[in-house]
Amino acid sequence: MNLTERLADRPMSNPRADRVRDVAGLAGRSARSKRGLFLAEGPQNAREALARHLESPCVDAVYVTGDALAQHPDITALLERVAADRAVFVRLVTREVLAAMSDAVSPQGVVVVCRSLDVPAAGILRPAPQLVAVLARVQDPGNAGTLLRAADAAGADALVLSTGSVDVYNPKAVRSTAGSLFHLPVAVGADLPELVRAARAAGCGILAADGRGDVDLDRLQDLSAARAAGAPVEDTGYDLARPTVWLFGNEAQGLSEEEKALADHRVAVPVYGRAESLNVGTAATVCLYASARAQRRAGRAHR
Amino acid sequence: MNLTERLADRPMSNPRADRVRDVAGLAGRSARSKRGLFLAEGPQNAREALARHLESPCVDAVYVTGDALAQHPDITALLERVAADRAVFVRLVTREVLAAMSDAVSPQGVVVVCRSLDVPAAGILRPAPQLVAVLARVQDPGNAGTLLRAADAAGADALVLSTGSVDVYNPKAVRSTAGSLFHLPVAVGADLPELVRAARAAGCGILAADGRGDVDLDRLQDLSAARAAGAPVEDTGYDLARPTVWLFGNEAQGLSEEEKALADHRVAVPVYGRAESLNVGTAATVCLYASARAQRRAGRAHR
Repeated sequence: MNLTERLADRPMSNPRADRVRDVAGLAGRSARSKRGLFLAEGPQNAREALARHLESPCVDAVYVTGDALAQHPDITALLERVAADRAVFVRLVTREVLAAMSDAVSPQGVVVVCRSLDVPAAGILRPAPQLVAVLARVQDPGNAGTLLRAADAAGADALVLSTGSVDVYNPKAVRSTAGSLFHLPVAVGADLPELVRAARAAGCGILAADGRGDVDLDRLQDLSAARAAGAPVEDTGYDLARPTVWLFGNEAQGLSEEEKALADHRVAVPVYGRAESLNVGTAATVCLYASARAQRRAGRAHR
Repeated sequence: MNLTERLADRPMSNPRADRVRDVAGLAGRSARSKRGLFLAEGPQNAREALARHLESPCVDAVYVTGDALAQHPDITALLERVAADRAVFVRLVTREVLAAMSDAVSPQGVVVVCRSLDVPAAGILRPAPQLVAVLARVQDPGNAGTLLRAADAAGADALVLSTGSVDVYNPKAVRSTAGSLFHLPVAVGADLPELVRAARAAGCGILAADGRGDVDLDRLQDLSAARAAGAPVEDTGYDLARPTVWLFGNEAQGLSEEEKALADHRVAVPVYGRAESLNVGTAATVCLYASARAQRRAGRAHR
């Protein structure tokens, strides 16, 4: 029985059904944590969840409207392959049912129920990583998701959320990742001092993003460029091309003194204008791209 | 009569008063547009609004709780000076009244009613600007605010929103700016082709941020660094140190073909990992900082 036959069977049309309530309940942290499941909503997340499932099973159920299937042939093709796995529950639903399941203000025709993907923090440090983003008590789900997407774009090996951070499986966080949650290993509930110790042992330098930091990111970038070009460069104590773990802090307070003390250097993204600072998502993107560029440049220079 | 005396007069305590409803109504676009007023909420925005008022009057009214005054002596000091202006209505309010006025989920003790600050698009091009960010049909208020904050941090001369963009005075947008709305000129409702024509006449190059662009931002940065270092550099048609207007597009669709055609080049922020793209706020930050760094580096080299 192929996908079309399975789906044609009988669309779910009762928005008050128990199953609908169960799916909708995953918008809450306690239900997610208890059941080990979370919601991936919208075409981009669905696409990435299904593609990931074909490499490493993570999808529990898929609910999709006929309109969404017609509009996204690539998702239909992926779903056809995923549906061959009898452990995945795939159902056509009406728009009303999808809206009742979804946490989004504008549901986009598909909801994928996935199993939690996070890995132990120790796991992300084997083998030796080049670039890791650590979120220390970041609270806003949109910021966490944006940061995960930016870490993915910058080619980071992994993202870590410390204890006291927002739940990365919060539906708004997942939406903000635009699928990146399915791309790179994510560790949650990490103990920061322990993580930093292990990262050092794995050969990483530790940088703390800090608007009042004593090291200017532009200066690190200039020195790294000069070094890669073979120019004689004074030793500033940190080569941006090194394997690096970046620490990013809470939106309102930034990193605490204890958190900053874990780092080799406190690095400031320079503010050229009158803004007091950048927000954590944009500051982190600038930092991660600076490391990624330096590492790639050094890689080219060594070849 | 000083501030403390004026404020001790009689705190507003009725959350259902007409004035409270009038202030709360500014969460809606039509009321803002009709009355030419908007809400600046929270300590950071209040601080910047009051400081701006002392240079160039923009504050209509200030509502503040006793707790907030006690907690922020710097705001109290600014308010003391602003209150000398009899045209500004300053009132102590209860927490209930403040919550009823505020659009925020967690009101932070102070709401400032400000007069619209935007300037005509033509105005921002005199004298010749170095760096301008243009938002073409950006829809999310958080993204618009984040972008304004990032443009301010990168030292941009101005920010422009095209017709069809989110209202920059949306309370969520204003909150996301963290005060930057009071720092740099903002033009709204701009006609893009007209703006680009005027910017070219003012000596600016035009770059379109486009994930599928034909020019790699890293390459432009490397060439700009080499050029500033006095190395012989092939001509790629664009020097990142030039006065530049950046165009950033809608969250879902990016820039339209017509919008991209207005630019000299379509520039991609490289994606090193598996993310499909960066979001508009983080991509724009990387682009604006790349221009700012190149311009500063060239400035140093010429000195």
